[in-house]
Amino acid sequence: MARRASASSAGSGERVPFRRLAASLASLGREFHGRGWALGTSGNLSAVLSRNPLRLAITPTGADKGELASAAILEVNAAGRARNGSRRALPANAKSPAGTAAQASAETLLHLTVARVRGAGAVLHTHSIWGTVLSSEYARQGGIAIEGYEMLKGLAGVRTHEHREWLPILENRQDMTELARSVQHVLEKHPASHGFLLRGHGLYTWGRDLAEAKRHVEILEFLLEVLGRRLLVGSAPSVRKTSRSKSPRRSGRRKYGSGSHSR
Amino acid sequence: MARRASASSAGSGERVPFRRLAASLASLGREFHGRGWALGTSGNLSAVLSRNPLRLAITPTGADKGELASAAILEVNAAGRARNGSRRALPANAKSPAGTAAQASAETLLHLTVARVRGAGAVLHTHSIWGTVLSSEYARQGGIAIEGYEMLKGLAGVRTHEHREWLPILENRQDMTELARSVQHVLEKHPASHGFLLRGHGLYTWGRDLAEAKRHVEILEFLLEVLGRRLLVGSAPSVRKTSRSKSPRRSGRRKYGSGSHSR
Amino acid sequence: MARRASASSAGSGERVPFRRLAASLASLGREFHGRGWALGTSGNLSAVLSRNPLRLAITPTGADKGELASAAILEVNAAGRARNGSRRALPANAKSPAGTAAQASAETLLHLTVARVRGAGAVLHTHSIWGTVLSSEYARQGGIAIEGYEMLKGLAGVRTHEHREWLPILENRQDMTELARSVQHVLEKHPASHGFLLRGHGLYTWGRDLAEAKRHVEILEFLLEVLGRRLLVGSAPSVRKTSRSKSPRRSGRRKYGSGSHSR
Amino acid sequence: MARRASASSAGSGERVPFRRLAASLASLGREFHGRGWALGTSGNLSAVLSRNPLRLAITPTGADKGELASAAILEVNAAGRARNGSRRALPANAKSPAGTAAQASAETLLHLTVARVRGAGAVLHTHSIWGTVLSSEYARQGGIAIEGYEMLKGLAGVRTHEHREWLPILENRQDMTELARSVQHVLEKHPASHGFLLRGHGLYTWGRDLAEAKRHVEILEFLLEVLGRRLLVGSAPSVRKTSRSKSPRRSGRRKYGSGSHSR
Repeated sequence: MARRASASSAGSGERVPFRRLAASLASLGREFHGRGWALGTSGNLSAVLSRNPLRLAITPTGADKGELASAAILEVNAAGRARNGSRRALPANAKSPAGTAAQASAETLLHLTVARVRGAGAVLHTHSIWGTVLSSEYARQGGIAIEGYEMLKGLAGVRTHEHREWLPILENRQDMTELARSVQHVLEKHPASHGFLLRGHGLYTWGRDLAEAKRHVEILEFLLEVLGRRLLVGSAPSVRKTSRSKSPRRSGRRKYGSGSHSR
Repeated sequence: MARRASASSAGSGERVPFRRLAASLASLGREFHGRGWALGTSGNLSAVLSRNPLRLAITPTGADKGELASAAILEVNAAGRARNGSRRALPANAKSPAGTAAQASAETLLHLTVARVRGAGAVLHTHSIWGTVLSSEYARQGGIAIEGYEMLKGLAGVRTHEHREWLPILENRQDMTELARSVQHVLEKHPASHGFLLRGHGLYTWGRDLAEAKRHVEILEFLLEVLGRRLLVGSAPSVRKTSRSKSPRRSGRRKYGSGSHSR
Repeated sequence: MARRASASSAGSGERVPFRRLAASLASLGREFHGRGWALGTSGNLSAVLSRNPLRLAITPTGADKGELASAAILEVNAAGRARNGSRRALPANAKSPAGTAAQASAETLLHLTVARVRGAGAVLHTHSIWGTVLSSEYARQGGIAIEGYEMLKGLAGVRTHEHREWLPILENRQDMTELARSVQHVLEKHPASHGFLLRGHGLYTWGRDLAEAKRHVEILEFLLEVLGRRLLVGSAPSVRKTSRSKSPRRSGRRKYGSGSHSR
Repeated sequence: MARRASASSAGSGERVPFRRLAASLASLGREFHGRGWALGTSGNLSAVLSRNPLRLAITPTGADKGELASAAILEVNAAGRARNGSRRALPANAKSPAGTAAQASAETLLHLTVARVRGAGAVLHTHSIWGTVLSSEYARQGGIAIEGYEMLKGLAGVRTHEHREWLPILENRQDMTELARSVQHVLEKHPASHGFLLRGHGLYTWGRDLAEAKRHVEILEFLLEVLGRRLLVGSAPSVRKTSRSKSPRRSGRRKYGSGSHSR
């Protein structure tokens, strides 16, 4: 634990020891897999090694996060290119054929974008059931507003449960350059958001260091599940409301929360 | 296990060894985190060190409960002030900046209130999905009545499943002094209740010692989940019933249970 | 594992070594607690030590199953009385005050009844969420019929998924003598049933030995959850159907299954 | 981990060391049991030892997967017959009476069929809650179409979330020869499918090696749960739509996904 603490942030020109961050990322990746947030090689985790130039330690593509070893973590530069001469042993269960040099996460550009725009020290992408369900259910609304929950107080800068958190939902794309552009646009448009969702793909969040990013993941995944379960109970606005519907469940309101607002 | 047993209660002037209680609280905190009841630094746990004067061992604020170490547990007095000269190492992942002296849980006043009014030996606050969902869903009713379930028999003083347990729901507040006052009022108004909920925030329960408090947590969290799932199945009264609704799901009754009452 | 195998059954006059059965019961108790099937001191597990006279090894009352130790397992005779001179150390977190001699499970008479009527070698009572929800939801129907699921093939004597399993639901009672009488009546009335439910209380099942009983628990708890989730999806007959209801969800049929029957 | 990697595939005449595959299969079986995918002796796992002649390492019938040991794994030939003279010790908790020679999984013929038709290196059958629920709910439609989810990209040969995966649902049968015939027919009819469901029975999937098959299990089980939860939320087409129903939830469309299609 002491190690993780000291290996958790990078000042302007400072380099954080790669080995410690790699160990933390691998450990967290295995934990996320165990929690169902990074199954089937999904999800990715990164931490900033240095800010100028921007360099990240990041999980490899196609790796089983349940078996993630420190040796599999890669170092990438601001353009997303893995370090030359890195002799990382890729876990034998990666999607790329055995023997190929390990490649950084396919979503490296997104991590770099978030790290740059938000000045984050760590960026985490979880691919959970509820993140997938809600990012699909609320895609048309363009985002999810969450307010009234005490859990929101754990987000950096938030002091009260009456905070209104807006989680934008972006359309998923395979063109990473395009997607990174969308992400940058959304981050600049919503400077207060602590995360965003990719439709049918899951959650991205970050923090000043790995510990804060992890805390944000726990908080947002928790709140997504609360919303998902409340959707089933009927208190959240129906996703399929139409103007003709006279159902008492129609609310017309986009935001929902624990209840500082009467409903 | 032997240690936890002997370190679980404090008589009138007796002091319970701090170290054992701290170890028990840290262990239980990690267990609750693993169960999803204390994610993102939420939740708090305390145990009484002495009754006159009232002193508690309590979890620190902003700590990742999954990494909670005995060394992080604090001692507070009846006013909620942490002991002078305590050199507790705060886990590096706490919300307060590294280097700050550790602070006791933000909800310390609530723990003191419960310990005093109920004469409890331990007070536990879990922040679960179902506690959050149901405290939000039933906030307007002011509480949840649970009856007919065998699990109720595990609550102190309860001998039959035909017991009617009332869990009051309080509005959540950030002003701890105000909130502690609400809590005291509710505890005095409902002397038989084994717990209460804070809206959108979760469950508080207690026991004569840590073991009994833990048993109460397991029982009440279990029952909250049963109710939540039955809500979805439609047997519990609809939360959003209106006078116009002719839906067969409307029952008009506030209490629900396994079925000593016909429905 | 070898031990559990040999310690799992008792012939007519044969005594099975107590120590091995106690270790297996304690281990299984802890596992059930970890699975959420024996929370808050609920649930109980027994295995037959000898058949003539009938003697069981059984879990104590009021014990935290998550901390269950072999030393806490008791031996009872056909009348349910614990052995004289047993110096079992009761885990410090039991419901009875510290220092009291350990007492056998409050439901010992039910275990004895099942062991006698079914000739079972082990009897297991789990107190799960889904067992509690469905035993409450279907109480008025007096039972649950399950058919069409491959999982049914794991039940002793069942060779096909087209098997129709009937799980009777009994009203819960605190008078154990009365309840044992009900249990005996139901077991004699439904000789093919592999288990029964106590309303709002959970599942009882058994097997020729602990391994078979455990397999039956896994199968029946699995099927209860499948039914519970299908209830939410709407394919199972509505619990609250009335004769007036014209809802398309009304089916009038009591049995439900995967689909050897058109619906 | 290194072992599993090298023990994961078999070329044309090559024999893969049995011991390593057996260890991997046993380990994976225990993991699947822990995840709730192989409870009550359900589920089965196999890996190809050699292709010409076709020989598999496969789990035994009636074994508690939670206790699965390498020594219990059997070797079978292309006709499904276990190797002569194999002295595998069957775990004491198997369904067949103690002392009987271990038998290969009852579904061996299905594994052989998949290995042959798909040229797979490993075949895995999980028996999960959601696999059971959805294979029952969508049986009449003959299959489930899944599209729009990023998780689909983890399937071999899939490059985009806009992929449309069709999971056929076959009627369950006890006659293995008949069932194997159905499986072969379905595999030939749907060459792009990465898996299929047996009604009320669960999922079959495969891969070029054990790691890929495991990845496919994680992906498909994840997607089945996403669909199941979305069914509850109402976005997936109702299973019980009838021509008379005017419910706004009726969609008439068979496919559903995250949303490349408007709904």
